[in-house]
Amino acid sequence: MTKFVGVRDMVRWVSAQGPEAIIAGMMGYLERDFARWARFDKSPRTASHTPFGVIELMPTSDYEQYAFKYVNGHPSNPANGFQTVTAFGALSDVSNGYPVLVAEMTLLTALRTAATSAMVARHLARPESRIMGMIGTGSQAEFQALGMRAALGIESLQIWDTDPAAMVKFSRNLEPLGFDIRHATSNADAADGADVLTTCTADKALARVLEDDMVHAGTHINAIGGDCPGKTELDPQILRRSTVFVEYPPQTRVEGEIQQLPPEFDVVEFWKVLTGDAQGRRDAEEITLFDSVGFAIEDFSALRYLADHVAGTDYETDIDLVAEPDDPKDLFGMVGSLVPTH
Amino acid sequence: MTKFVGVRDMVRWVSAQGPEAIIAGMMGYLERDFARWARFDKSPRTASHTPFGVIELMPTSDYEQYAFKYVNGHPSNPANGFQTVTAFGALSDVSNGYPVLVAEMTLLTALRTAATSAMVARHLARPESRIMGMIGTGSQAEFQALGMRAALGIESLQIWDTDPAAMVKFSRNLEPLGFDIRHATSNADAADGADVLTTCTADKALARVLEDDMVHAGTHINAIGGDCPGKTELDPQILRRSTVFVEYPPQTRVEGEIQQLPPEFDVVEFWKVLTGDAQGRRDAEEITLFDSVGFAIEDFSALRYLADHVAGTDYETDIDLVAEPDDPKDLFGMVGSLVPTH
Repeated sequence: MTKFVGVRDMVRWVSAQGPEAIIAGMMGYLERDFARWARFDKSPRTASHTPFGVIELMPTSDYEQYAFKYVNGHPSNPANGFQTVTAFGALSDVSNGYPVLVAEMTLLTALRTAATSAMVARHLARPESRIMGMIGTGSQAEFQALGMRAALGIESLQIWDTDPAAMVKFSRNLEPLGFDIRHATSNADAADGADVLTTCTADKALARVLEDDMVHAGTHINAIGGDCPGKTELDPQILRRSTVFVEYPPQTRVEGEIQQLPPEFDVVEFWKVLTGDAQGRRDAEEITLFDSVGFAIEDFSALRYLADHVAGTDYETDIDLVAEPDDPKDLFGMVGSLVPTH
Repeated sequence: MTKFVGVRDMVRWVSAQGPEAIIAGMMGYLERDFARWARFDKSPRTASHTPFGVIELMPTSDYEQYAFKYVNGHPSNPANGFQTVTAFGALSDVSNGYPVLVAEMTLLTALRTAATSAMVARHLARPESRIMGMIGTGSQAEFQALGMRAALGIESLQIWDTDPAAMVKFSRNLEPLGFDIRHATSNADAADGADVLTTCTADKALARVLEDDMVHAGTHINAIGGDCPGKTELDPQILRRSTVFVEYPPQTRVEGEIQQLPPEFDVVEFWKVLTGDAQGRRDAEEITLFDSVGFAIEDFSALRYLADHVAGTDYETDIDLVAEPDDPKDLFGMVGSLVPTH
């Protein structure tokens, strides 16, 4: 029987374990999967674009397990009372193709995106980083902050959002968890003096929430929001000054910040830093930039982490998803109501 | 709240309505969607192949609704007590990206595949067709027979399968429904004198379950089983003698019977027959051949048919799949257990 983790059970699980502990645990799964990157069946996600937003399917497999995620991105959703991003997905057994776990992935995606940013920052940011500037304090922001604390010990945050209520919400959620949070007066003010800069805004536009003169030497930039065609956040001059690390170039060239630059612009596949095939940060002056768009292997890691940690608990239930006729060749026997069935 | 139709409820619904009535109803939905083919967002399915089988994702959208199906194909599954093909999928609202219906699709795929074959045969087979030869009597076979009866009134079947038990099962299921069934002694015997020939075997191999000399003038061939790279059923000479109709050429060239022929081999997109942009059967001597691989629009039609017909009934239940925080920007508030939540 296929297992199911719905929203209510996901909330119970995350609340009980604590989101920071889960993000920290997921970082380990992500690191191990990124380190065996070459062994995965990889393809750019399929995307169906409309004027409203995008719906994507993100599959991958390590030839033992297969995972896919359904995810939408609709920037105008919050104005109508809906989430910008919602997601669900499944993990399957490659040997017979049967789904073993179906799960809500709105919360899980927030956790895995933060865990991915954190894992990358642990390898690329200066170890003595103490202040993070955050531009955009929407749904993803608190998870990012917890991830950076897990990875680098950062507790000082300088935040900016064009929606003041989103900043208030962020502080309400994170001050009780021990963060020191300053509400900046502009994006430039949020970036001022920061060791790590996280950009995570929702507009589907070629925006510039970070200008070149706001970025000083030695910064690690964690660029989250530029993640589909026509949706970027950075002044392209920042990219030219930085060493740009990416997940999967065929997808990032189309969806990431580097869509603003020619296809020959040099990037480093982050997994190579883990395997020693590429260098990470070279010195304290270098600007490192993670042009994150989100890749299917991260969802694979997150679903595996979830499956391993809810197995046998009451956080998972059964879902009646796979027909199991007594005789596998007799599917019709399940519905042929005029026929005596065994 | 997203709705869910699981296996048990799908079985109840199909049993209550009768599979033939559902197939007949679905033919109407399919015909209307094929007739507006150009308006769909179309792409070949993504496929993850392993030595065991294949796992595929099949998305499409008419820019109002979006559908995708997860489906596996594992020929060795029945020997291990599993279904060759299992499937599930979802229908979504394009305006906000939220899934509105998640459903088991193992049974639904069997119904839609039969409905597609039947719709095509209604337009391409000779109207006076009275005998169908069937090679392969596995999971899909009974549904195909019901579809051809709904489309053409065919009640005389000549069946062949290398597994005698599969033929016994087929007769046990369909004789009570009024079919006249002859167990053939070979594939050639099943084809002998047939007006319509359906091939539907499971081996992932370049097989020849139908040889050129078994096919006489005027036949309509409904070729179902050749549906992924390295998996075909027909002597390629049959294709050269026939007018070949396909769903979506970029997918069929890779997956269908025509993978055996050069890419310039001429085919007709079936939807054009419905819109009048291409001719169907020209005369009583022509061999028409539907090289069916299954396309996402068929699943879209099937999910819409299901959604329309179970709405408001107890065949659908709620599934807890989409996080709905009170404030759409405050996803974290759902899990920040140390924080007083509103």
